[in-house]
Formats: sequence, structure tokens, C-alpha cells
Amino acid sequence: MNAEIIAVGSEMLTPFRLDTNSLFLTRELNQLGIDVVRKSVLGDDRARLTEALREALDSSPLVLVTGGLGPTEDDLTRECAADALGIGLHRDDEATEHLRQWFARRGSPMAERNLRQTMKLDGAELLANGMGTAPGQWLATAGRILVLLPGPPRELHPMFEQQVLPRLRPLAPPVAFFTRVLRIADRGESSVDEAAAPIYRRYQNPQTTILASQPHEIELHFRASAATAEEARRLADEVAEQVAQQPLLAPAVFSRDNEPMEAVVGALLQRRNETVAVAESCTGGMLGERITAVAGSSAWFTGGVQSYQNAVKIELLGVSPLVLKEHGAVSEATARQMAEGVRRRLDSDWGVSITGIAGPGGGSPEKPVGTVYIAVTRRGGETLVMHRVFWGERERIRRSATQVALDRLRLALQAASHESASAQP
Amino acid sequence: MNAEIIAVGSEMLTPFRLDTNSLFLTRELNQLGIDVVRKSVLGDDRARLTEALREALDSSPLVLVTGGLGPTEDDLTRECAADALGIGLHRDDEATEHLRQWFARRGSPMAERNLRQTMKLDGAELLANGMGTAPGQWLATAGRILVLLPGPPRELHPMFEQQVLPRLRPLAPPVAFFTRVLRIADRGESSVDEAAAPIYRRYQNPQTTILASQPHEIELHFRASAATAEEARRLADEVAEQVAQQPLLAPAVFSRDNEPMEAVVGALLQRRNETVAVAESCTGGMLGERITAVAGSSAWFTGGVQSYQNAVKIELLGVSPLVLKEHGAVSEATARQMAEGVRRRLDSDWGVSITGIAGPGGGSPEKPVGTVYIAVTRRGGETLVMHRVFWGERERIRRSATQVALDRLRLALQAASHESASAQP
Repeated sequence: MNAEIIAVGSEMLTPFRLDTNSLFLTRELNQLGIDVVRKSVLGDDRARLTEALREALDSSPLVLVTGGLGPTEDDLTRECAADALGIGLHRDDEATEHLRQWFARRGSPMAERNLRQTMKLDGAELLANGMGTAPGQWLATAGRILVLLPGPPRELHPMFEQQVLPRLRPLAPPVAFFTRVLRIADRGESSVDEAAAPIYRRYQNPQTTILASQPHEIELHFRASAATAEEARRLADEVAEQVAQQPLLAPAVFSRDNEPMEAVVGALLQRRNETVAVAESCTGGMLGERITAVAGSSAWFTGGVQSYQNAVKIELLGVSPLVLKEHGAVSEATARQMAEGVRRRLDSDWGVSITGIAGPGGGSPEKPVGTVYIAVTRRGGETLVMHRVFWGERERIRRSATQVALDRLRLALQAASHESASAQP
Repeated sequence: MNAEIIAVGSEMLTPFRLDTNSLFLTRELNQLGIDVVRKSVLGDDRARLTEALREALDSSPLVLVTGGLGPTEDDLTRECAADALGIGLHRDDEATEHLRQWFARRGSPMAERNLRQTMKLDGAELLANGMGTAPGQWLATAGRILVLLPGPPRELHPMFEQQVLPRLRPLAPPVAFFTRVLRIADRGESSVDEAAAPIYRRYQNPQTTILASQPHEIELHFRASAATAEEARRLADEVAEQVAQQPLLAPAVFSRDNEPMEAVVGALLQRRNETVAVAESCTGGMLGERITAVAGSSAWFTGGVQSYQNAVKIELLGVSPLVLKEHGAVSEATARQMAEGVRRRLDSDWGVSITGIAGPGGGSPEKPVGTVYIAVTRRGGETLVMHRVFWGERERIRRSATQVALDRLRLALQAASHESASAQP
């Protein structure tokens, strides 16, 4: 089954706003085996919206419209849908009563224009809105389904999940879907595809999609369909596992369950009952910010030092002034002393440091913009320092540095766990 | 003049990708006085794309299409445009020669399928692509303009600016535009609108738009049109200035030139030749990360301490264990000692601290999730501590805390500058 999505609202035809509801709806529809074949954004313009609805209803069996259901004169979705279908629009008594109660509970008077929201397309069912005043509508007519939904996500999401999904499910093909997501760190999109394509190209089911989701992170989505969810999962995993075990990719696959890097590192630390501290120069706090984006991170993150100026590196981290003078703040020696210093000062099991030149200024022929040193050290263990030159603008370089630092920590944690396991009798 | 934008590519009909090119194109078109009346996304489907192009060319005088110009069989934009217009498509010799040279310069053989890219709509002008292999096309026919553009932004942007804008400008209405943007911190959208609407509603020109762009930040856009750019600017500023001086809004307007908060705070510090240090608990580094997102921030940011665990607050910041025990880590007293401690330890002019409960766990009836204390201290000056309860999920609470902390620092810096100015003889 195919669907079209129409988003209504003049603000989405400005340079400032995108229609993001369609991402949510597409994910939900795809799970039912329904493909989205067209998405449109239209303004609050009666003639254009009516024409667009007519075209959509002519060419797709399912049309979802978001927005334009509010109480103001700009909210035209109901009227345009009635015109497009050539049907009437009449006040619904139950909805009117419901709306009066909604305002009464809040102790505020109801402006008359709110009654616009109780106008129902002939033959439609109203979809109650638990989070706002505008009900949605579901209309099945002449082999076509038209669904009107409110624009605000916090109203749209529960309405779709609780009232649209149950109505759609019996109409969707009797097929179950499962998507396995591999996340891969620090490999280019083309090198991932080169390694993975010879495997996934042999299969029509699952369908494989490759996505460069953020700097130094590639996602592979394996979406399988089958008669049962278990079978779809087996099909997706059969291919995903082969790809995950491909020798060039295996060490870089950090998640098979779509967890972000921060969560993977956090889980590894928590499992080992260990802690990490960070020392950040050019990233200014981004590494700590990412680690603490995971709820419960106080169990494994002690803290860190944003050692932006050299005096802070010396005072708080114990970096040697001589090292700074001889090698510079952006150097292997400084990165090493930063990681070791913060680990010791914060009495943590692991220490990670980043020092580099994020640009746009500050580069030199020897150390161009993008030059970054990353160090990972371990209590009673050695310190590994890595030298990289990242491309892109300031924000991308900083994001890349934190991603690679987290990935290095992940690899060190996995190696440590492997050692411990081997050391068991 | 009205325009429609059609983005072509099946990846934009998945739950993972949006068409963001349309934001760039809309901004550019609006600057010429051209309104976008519809945006569509279509997949690589010949029948649907042809039909969509036909509809668009029927209803709008200007149609821009992005994507689908590459060398593969999925790239159907050229063929569909020819079908929609009922015209021919023929190989262009100059483009063919250009393409051969492009591959020769790179020393790589040219696959035959690349020649698809040299097929030109009858009557069209090719738009050279300096960043890739697919030329764009400009076709003016029967009172309609059709522009085909490549999908990758780094190819699209220069082609639009260098080759489409000069062709569009003579056709656009002889009107100049200017947009003034006010950025407002720490006020709700409805309270900003309540204060601003009585002023801007009195004007048709400029048009005013209110945008909640991020937590604790509202933007007001005043877009004026006039015969000259100077006159448009005068019209926009006439209204913007009245709004900016509205007593309830004035202290909250942190930028009249669209600079982000981080840049405003950085400029204030640089002008005073002063430095700031940060102590972060629940934000884990986000405050430092935001301050250092501004290039050149080493001139005013000394560094900071991510004092996530209490031991770090005690050891590195000198927070009293007794205070932690009696008041807790999330308290006015702890916030005060964190800010004062980091300022002193890092020998900075200003110190800013954040301590709070970002959730989802860790809340209590006395200190619910979202409770945050923010302190700002000054060398030789007093320490101001603020207590707030932010709503939303973990990331929103953390983002809100850094935004309000930066805004408090901005207000303190402005007050200090005002003092210095008054103290002058």
C-alpha cells in the first residue's frame, strides 16, 4: 500500500521550519509495510490545498494530512478536504460538548471560533485529542482513506499511535517487519559500503540502507519483511551478522542495537564497575557533555577539566611547562600528560584527553587546522596516543574528535574485558 | 511571483532524511520577493515525478527541482521534465566534451552511463557544475521557468548563486528586502508575543514572524520590502527598535544582528578584556562547549571543571564537604562555592557554575527533576545565585541550564559595563 503525506502551514514554507512530522509518520507507516510515495508542504491557501488534496486522493489509497485543524481562519484543512471530496461538513454535537468541557475544566471562557474545530466531514470518525482542542478525523470513502491530524507533535504522536494505528493495521498487508541497525565508528561511507555491499547485494530481503549519520559514524539498516516478526528478525540478522563479522568492519561495529556511542561506552564502564575522567582542550567540554548525555552517567563519569588555556593544563592537570614549551599544547606529549594527569587527579580508572586545533585560525604548515591528539590511559596500564587530522569546519572537527576519542575508549575497554576473560582460570 | 520546489530522491521518503535544500532555496527566493507556495518530495519513480512536474508547471510560473540529475538509472529528473513538457531531450556536445575533460583531469576512465548527464532539454541552457559532474538546466518556455539543480548542497549552492540568481533577478519584482532579527533570551513565546504584537500589528510592512528557535530563546523576524535596500532596512528597524525597547522585552533582547548567545557573551568579555571560567555538574561540559564554539574563544575562556562527582567538587573547586552534606550537591550554597572556586582556581575575572538534576532519575518532592542552581561570580564582586526548575527531558533541561547561565553572565557583563561607563568622569 502507498501513502502520501501533506503538511499544512505557511510557517513551513519559510526558510526557518521543516516538516518533521513526516519522519515520525513514515517510520510508523513503514513498520506496517506502507510506503510513502510523496510528501508535500502547503500553506494556508484554500485553492492550492484543495487541489493538492484532490490530486493526492486520486493517486494514493492513503492520504495523511497534518496541521490546519486549529480554531483560526487560517486553519483550512477541514474545508479543503470537504471541497476536494465534494462532501459536506457539519457540526458534531459530541465534539462540541467535549470542547465546552475542555474549556470549563480550565476555567477559561471558550471563544466562539473554537467551534470550527467541531466541524466533521460527512461520514468521518472524529479522533479525540487528549493533548489539545482539535480532534483529528478518519474518513474511509470509495476505496480511499483520508486521515486529518493535528500539527503539534505532542498531539499528533499519541493520536496516531492510539487511534490511527489500530485502524490502519487491519488494512495493511499481513506482513511483519524488523530492522536491524549496525552502527560503525571511524570508517568512511564508501569503505563501509565496499566491505558490506558484496554481502548484502546477494539479498533482496532484507533491504539494506547505508547512512552517514554524523561525523565518523555510519549506520547500516537491514529491513526485512516476513510472515512473522520472528522470521523477519531472523532474515535481517542473517545478513547483519555476516556484515558485522566482515574482518575490515568487525572492530568498528560498536552497536548492533542502535545505541549511540555514549551509551555503549557507558555500558562497558558500568559492566566493569570502572570510572572515566576527561581532559579537554579544543573540545571545551563536548566530550564530557556527550558522556553525561546518558542518564545514570554519574555511576561511571567522575568529571573532567576543560583545560583551554595552558595555565590550566599546568595547574590542574600537572602538564609540564617544559613539555608545553618544547612540544606545544597540541602534541603527543601534552595529550599524554593531560590524560594521565586527569586520571590521577580525579582518581579514576580511565583518563581520556583531547587537544587540537579546531580552527578556523591557529593552523600552521606542520600542524594544520584539524590536527588533533587523543590519549587514552588506564590505571596501572599504558597510555595510547593517537594523531589525526580531521577535515571540515570548527564544529565538525570538534565533533569528530569526541567521536574518535569515545571510540578509542570503547576499543580499550573491550580489549581490557577480553584480557580479563582470558585471564580467568 | 510564486515558486514551487520539488526535491527528488527516494532517500528523502525514508524516516531518516529530510529535504533541507528547500530552506536554502526559500531564503534565496524570498530575498528576491518570490514566495514558495508548495514544496514536494518525490522518489525515483518516473510516472509520479512526471505527473508532479506537470501539475507544478501548470500552477506556478517558477518550478525548481533538486536532485535526480546524476548518472545512474535512478536519476530520472531530465526524462520526466521532458515528458511533462512534451519536448525532446538531446545530447549536448559541449557538455559531453566538458565531462570527458573532467574525468581526464582526474585520470579516471569515464563510465558510459555518465553521458546521461549531458542530455539537455530542448531549448534549455545548461548550468555548469564546478563541484561535480551533473550540469543543471534552465528552461524558460511559454511563460514558465523550470530550473533543474543537483541535489548535493555543495554543488547546488554555488550553481544557484552564480548562475540561477543572475537569471532570476531581472524577472523578480523590482523590490528590495531587508530582515532584522531580534533574539530574546529566557522569555516564553506567548509572553514575547503579548509584549510585541501591539507594536508590530500596526504595520503591514515589515511582516513579523515569531519563532521559538531553541530552549529559552525566541526570535522575532521583521521583514520589510521597499524600492531600495536602505528604505527596507529603515522600515524593518523602525518596528524592530520599538519592540526592542518595549520595557518588558528590552533586558531580554540579547542580539539585534542574529548572533548566537555564545558570540554575544564572547564579544562582551573581549571588549572588557576579561576572562571566564566554568564549573559544571549536570551539564557535564555543555557550557564550556558552547562558549568554545566561538572561534577565538581562547582570548576569553580560561577553562573549567566538569565536577560531576562530589569528590571533584571538593578536590578541584574547594567546595566544603560540610556544605555538600548539609545542603546537597544541588543547592544554592554548592553552586556559589563552585563558581567562586573555579574563578579563583583558574584565576579568571568571572566564574559561572551549574548544578542540577537533569533526570530522568534523581528527583525528589523538594528537588524535582529540572531543579537547577546557576551562580555567576566576579573578581572582587558579589556572587549571584539563581534557582530554576526547567521542564522537559534530560537534554532540554541541560540546554536550558546553559542558556540561562550564559544569559545571566551576559546581564552581569552588561551591568558591569554600565557601571564602568557611569564611573567615568
